[in-house]
Parts: sequence; structure tokens; C-alpha cells
Amino acid sequence: MPEVNCPKCSSKMRVDWRRNNTLTHFFYSCPSCELESQIEVEDFLEKKIQEILGIKSEKLEESIKKGNTKFFISMGIPTLLFKKETGELESGTVIYLSDEIEVIRGFPKIRRTLLLGPSLKNHFQDLIAVEEKMNGYNVRIASINCSDICQDISKNPESNSKGFDEANEDIKHNKIVALTRGGYICPFTTKKAQELMNLDDFFADNPELIICGEMVGTDNPYVSQYYPEVGKLAFRVFDIRHKLSNEPLSIDAKRKLLKQYNLPAVRLFGVFSADDAQEKILELIKEIGLEHREGVVMKHPSMEIPPLKYTSSQAHDREIKYAFNFPFDFGRAFFFSRVVREGFQAYEMEDSPEELQKRAQRLGESIIYPMMDIIKQINDGEPAVEDTTINVDSKKEAEEFVRHLHDLGVSAMLIEYKDGNAIIRRIYNATNDKIKNYLNGGLY
Amino acid sequence: MPEVNCPKCSSKMRVDWRRNNTLTHFFYSCPSCELESQIEVEDFLEKKIQEILGIKSEKLEESIKKGNTKFFISMGIPTLLFKKETGELESGTVIYLSDEIEVIRGFPKIRRTLLLGPSLKNHFQDLIAVEEKMNGYNVRIASINCSDICQDISKNPESNSKGFDEANEDIKHNKIVALTRGGYICPFTTKKAQELMNLDDFFADNPELIICGEMVGTDNPYVSQYYPEVGKLAFRVFDIRHKLSNEPLSIDAKRKLLKQYNLPAVRLFGVFSADDAQEKILELIKEIGLEHREGVVMKHPSMEIPPLKYTSSQAHDREIKYAFNFPFDFGRAFFFSRVVREGFQAYEMEDSPEELQKRAQRLGESIIYPMMDIIKQINDGEPAVEDTTINVDSKKEAEEFVRHLHDLGVSAMLIEYKDGNAIIRRIYNATNDKIKNYLNGGLY
Repeated sequence: MPEVNCPKCSSKMRVDWRRNNTLTHFFYSCPSCELESQIEVEDFLEKKIQEILGIKSEKLEESIKKGNTKFFISMGIPTLLFKKETGELESGTVIYLSDEIEVIRGFPKIRRTLLLGPSLKNHFQDLIAVEEKMNGYNVRIASINCSDICQDISKNPESNSKGFDEANEDIKHNKIVALTRGGYICPFTTKKAQELMNLDDFFADNPELIICGEMVGTDNPYVSQYYPEVGKLAFRVFDIRHKLSNEPLSIDAKRKLLKQYNLPAVRLFGVFSADDAQEKILELIKEIGLEHREGVVMKHPSMEIPPLKYTSSQAHDREIKYAFNFPFDFGRAFFFSRVVREGFQAYEMEDSPEELQKRAQRLGESIIYPMMDIIKQINDGEPAVEDTTINVDSKKEAEEFVRHLHDLGVSAMLIEYKDGNAIIRRIYNATNDKIKNYLNGGLY
Repeated sequence: MPEVNCPKCSSKMRVDWRRNNTLTHFFYSCPSCELESQIEVEDFLEKKIQEILGIKSEKLEESIKKGNTKFFISMGIPTLLFKKETGELESGTVIYLSDEIEVIRGFPKIRRTLLLGPSLKNHFQDLIAVEEKMNGYNVRIASINCSDICQDISKNPESNSKGFDEANEDIKHNKIVALTRGGYICPFTTKKAQELMNLDDFFADNPELIICGEMVGTDNPYVSQYYPEVGKLAFRVFDIRHKLSNEPLSIDAKRKLLKQYNLPAVRLFGVFSADDAQEKILELIKEIGLEHREGVVMKHPSMEIPPLKYTSSQAHDREIKYAFNFPFDFGRAFFFSRVVREGFQAYEMEDSPEELQKRAQRLGESIIYPMMDIIKQINDGEPAVEDTTINVDSKKEAEEFVRHLHDLGVSAMLIEYKDGNAIIRRIYNATNDKIKNYLNGGLY
């Protein structure tokens, strides 16, 4: 933020967060003579951001015009979020506007291969490192600089949302935060990440790095899946990246660093030659599929080539089941892409006729059974909802998390809090409304 | 068309179809002094159409602006086609601009019930006539007035498309034509309809009526399905409607008229009370499903309430199989809606656990098997195409039909003509391109 002194009493002015600040216009008010002195600063941020990110002025302006950027205060920090890809910037990129402007780039989309054989040969050159793709939610953890200004703001009860994690503010002007995919700081994840891992040493030594990983386990408010080695909740790191450039460390450098700071990595299944990889990965996928595990991410050891992903039949099936439990919320797009994956996998795996039949039948069952169940359920007066239990320290903390879900556009509510366990309910409105309508004789 | 005399030589002028006429602007040229006299007539048609159809001027203008109307010559007749619903006018409505303006309304969309029980009670009052819904293509047959002007044009080799069915033009100024759903006159259907039925007497007595029905059978270039009672090709009438108003005759009046003129009707399964209908129709659907027949249309005997449709599990399955034979041409939307129908039918039919499992497994097989097959086929160098054989009198007639398919936006070609049999090939480009791309290692 540019420093501005009050033209009347010369005190240091503060950004007036009650007003509608934008990327190109800031309103300041004077804390000494109160509302009597207000000034507006234009273009400061736009110029600053262009300078730092090297993003073209037109692209930035277009993004602002289209509403693809969002400006808000998160945990006391003025934040600019890129909701959609803008020039080189991935969607989910955030810029924190403390005294120092800090950029945390969005996690890059990992492209999928439908047929391992030809894509691996096309895409990679020599070696392929195969890591496990776990089924949880994508998190970026970073240490961000927190200026006097934002501390002031975070103590101001007028501000939109406050960190419930006040303790962190003692770490002089540095804050460790955890962002979910879209670029919002998740208070739950921020707290849990620091309970699950000692991150202070890592970030004290490497403030310019970002830890990217998956939060997994059954007590996971976004994507709950049981992993025997995890149980309720754990974090697994898959990438370490540089803040501003988003450049990843090589596989070796990453693993060395994680070992040094005792941070948990996702499983590395091995490093295969491009020639062997298809066969090895198909075997692996069958094996981990039987354990109901998700899939793999294939990376060049140098990380200079973008990674690819590939998933198990059981994962497709589980997602199709989920989609058809809430068919009118998830059906169309969700569904087709997963069915296509199954088709290509069946082709490449050369299933025996019996295996192929089983795969096909299982797919049909994953569609019809959940759909039947949800129609029955809604007919019995029970709505389409999904409950998750999360472990929190207080009801306030649970409420904070629900507010965060609302920020993400998720329809959710806290339905119970007892002894540190909070039950969060998501409501699937499209499924409820449509099925009710058909049950009442509505036409398709 | 308004009559216009040449300002130079006073001869009767003709619309100049080589120029880009629109609903609001017509170009005339003089046949006597040739290109030397051209005039433009504005707004004539717009006013005339408003007068006849009672459609609001703004709606009509909007439809023209959006490109939802199309103006062309079809079988020698200047034609205005409503490609999309406009005010009260159904999509597929055509206006023939001979001396008399004739309106053939689009066939109204029949809404679908997902659950018979509640919808029948909601929708119908007392009695429900249940007719068979056959799997072919929707055809409207009408007799249209053909003025001197359009006969002149149809003989002009410059015009876009000529009827191959020249014989009809002898029936002084009246022409029987068959339109497919979108509102285009199909030369193949026009000819076959008259071979299959004696329509002259009916239309001589009832020029203001339209026969609506389904062309079915295996030698069907649009939708080929075997019906034992049909074989290669047959027509079944399901509605008789008034030209301008689109009002249908009652079930009784329709059947009486069809009997009188010896025209074939779709099967009437019976007329049930609203209370019995659900049970009767569910039984019926199971029964005809086992014969791989499509479904039923439920109508109020008076036809004063819009009909509803309901289809068999086997029909859904067949369509899903078809969709997954050309997954990237038909997948997404096509698929989801059929799967939803299966879910609701399973719910309402109260399948036993074994029946339910079979239904689910069959659905999965209908997805995976065709998808596997097409991937293999394309990998073997054989493209995704669909061949149909039609019976025609000449190669010229077959070519005419392919041109008609192109008008409909269908990618098709004549690949063989021999002894009255023409093989028409449709090419599924999206499926070919995408699967080839994935087989070559393209990413999803």
C-alpha cells in the first residue's frame, strides 16, 4: 500500500476498507481526524502489479473488467485474487498487499492422459518419476509478510473476516497460511497444517518457497477418504515451488528438503524409463485401484516438463457414484469425462472378456444404485445433503469454517457442535429441487 | 408475393431469387426487359405474415435479427422457415410464399414424464389414450398450393434445388410434400410417403389438414430400426392437425378419417382411466420393451391437453449404446438425460434386487462396449461412420437426398449406388478426431 499522510493533520492515513476499493482506486481515511479527511489513490496497484508480475496492462485491465479479479481482506490481509487464468497467471493466484507485495501463484492444472502408452512417449523424454495422486484437496502453504497496517486491520472488528488463529500474529510480522485451490485462505486448513507439521523452521529458512500438497483423511471437510496410513487427517507434500515464478524444485531437491525439515511427502513409486513406464504404471494402477486409491502423477525428475496424471477405475467409479448421488448437482460434465476415462482405460488395459464385463457392470451399478437411493431418500422426506465432521477447538472456529465455505460459493451450514466435533452439512439444492419436482409429477 | 409491374415495360415482374431476399426486402426483376428494371419491395411480407399469424411485430423482427428465420427456395417454392420457436410458432414452422401464403406449423415438442404415477394424475383429468411411440423420424405431410410463379422458378435451372419428383407438378397447382422435423422438405420422404400411401384423395378433400406421423423401418436413412410388421419402410400416422392453427383432431375424429382414407395409424393400446393408467402403462412398457420397442405417447382423447411421452429401458439403452459408439459427437447431453430416465424408471417400476442389478449392469455394458469397439476400430484405421442403404430410382435421386442432408447440417456422402440401392455414409468427425488424437498421445 502506498503511504499517504493526511493533508489536514499529517497523520499516517489508513486504507478505508469499508469503502469499495478496487485494483485501481483506493480510499484512505485519517485515523486522527476520522472521516473528515478522505483521499483516493489511483493506479498505484495496477502499476505496481505490472512491474512485479510483468503482466501486460491490457490483460490486467481486461481481467478486472470481466470481474475475474476479486479484491478483499482475508485474515486481516488485503488480497487480490485472480479467479480465472490471466496471462501467465494461473487461476487461484493471489497477491497479498502488505508493505511488501507478495505473490502466491495458483497451482498449475495437471493434464490427464487417457492412454499411457502414446502420451508418455510423446510427453516425456527419458525418465519418469511416478508419485501417488491422493484423493483429498489441494493446498498451498506459504509464509507471508504481515505489515503493521494489516495487523491494525485484523484487530478492527469492522473487517470482513478475522483469523481465528490469533497466536500466529506473534511471529513478528510473518504468518503461515494455507490456501485451497481457488486461492482463499482456509482457516481450518491453516490451523491443521500447523498442528500436523512443524512448518516454522522450514519457512524461517525458506520464506520464498511454497509447499504444495494434499490434505487427506476421513475428517476432511472437503473430500473425505480413508487411507489406512493416515486415518483422520494428514498432509502429504507433492511439490515445492517458488513464490513469484511458480517454478518447482526438482524431485531430488524437493525430497531432500522435505527430509531435512521432517515434512511428509507423497509416495514415490519409482523412477522408470519412458520405455518401461506404460507397463509399470498399468500394473501399479491395477494394484492401487484394488486398494481404492486414486492414481498417479507422472513427473520428469527435473520438473522441467509439466506433470501428467492418470487414475484408477475404482476412482472413476467412486466419483461417478458420488455424482449420481447428487445427479442434478454433478451429473452432466462430471460424469461424461469419467466415463470416457473408463473407456480408454479398458482399451489400454486389454481386460479379459470377464474383466471387461465386470468393469462395465460396475460402472452401470455406480450410476443406477446411487440414483435410486437418492430418489427414495427424497421421497421419504430426507433431503440430499452431505455431512462431514471436523475436529475444531471451538464453535467459533467451526462457524469461521462455514463462512469460508460460503466464500467459496458452497451451500453449507453448521448443524451440530459438541466437544470439539462440528458437523458441517452441505445441501445439494439442484438435486433436491429437481427430484422433488419429478416426484410431484413435474415434467422433464 | 405482391404483384409488381415493371415501371418500364409494364410486364409482370418476378422475384429475383439470385439476390439476397429477406423477410422485409424483396428484389424484383423484369422478365421482358431483363435486368434493366429492378425494384425492391419492403415490408410486404412482414405485414402479411403478421396479419396471417397474429405474431407480434417485435417478436418477428427479433427472430429475423437473431438469424432464427431462414429464407430459401425449396422444391421451387419460396419458403420462410422458423428455425427456432418464435412467439406462438413452434420451431420447424414453415411459410410457403406462393400466391396464397400457406403456413405449416412445426410439430409441437412432446414433454416427457419421468414418473408416470404423479405426472399422469397432475396432467390428465379423466381418460388417457395410450398410443405407441415408434422409433423413426417425425414427418409432416401437407398439400401446398403452387402458383404460376413458383412453377416458373422450379423450371429455372438457376434455382437452388429442384424437386426430383416432377410428376407431381402435373396435379394442377397442388403439391404434396413431406417435411422432416426441422421444416425442410425431404425429397426422399416426399416420394416414399406417396409410394406407401394414397394421399391424393385425402388432400383433395382436406387441403387444410396436415398428416403427422413417423417414418419407420430398416431402410430408413435417418433412424433405422426393425419392426416385424413393417420391415423395410412404412409410415404410421399419429396426429392430424390444422394447417394454420396447428390444432389437432380428437383421437376419434383422427381414427375415423384415417380409416375412411385407408391411411395407417400408430397402434392405440387403449384408453385408460387416469387411476388405472400408471399400472397399465408400466406393464405395457415392460412388455414392449422386451420386444425392443420404443415407448408410448399418452393423450387426452379430446387432444385438448398436450400429450406426454414415456419410453422403455431398452430404448434408453439402445440410445446410450448409439451415443457411446460416437461418444464425442453425442456423449454429454444425450447421455445424461437417458441415464436420468433409467434412474426414475427403476424407482417407479420397483424392480426386484435382481432386476435392478440387471438394469444397472446392462446400462454399464451399453456404455463401455461401444466405446471400446470404436476406439479399437479407429486404432485399426477404420473411421467412425454410419452407413444406411436407401432405395431410390436413380443416382440423381440419391444425390438429391445427400444434398438435403447437407441442408440439415449433416456430414454425409453417397458412397455407392447400384441397382436402385444407394449407400449413404455419415461421418462422425468429433469422434474420429478426438479418438485419433488420444491414440496419438493427445492429452485430455
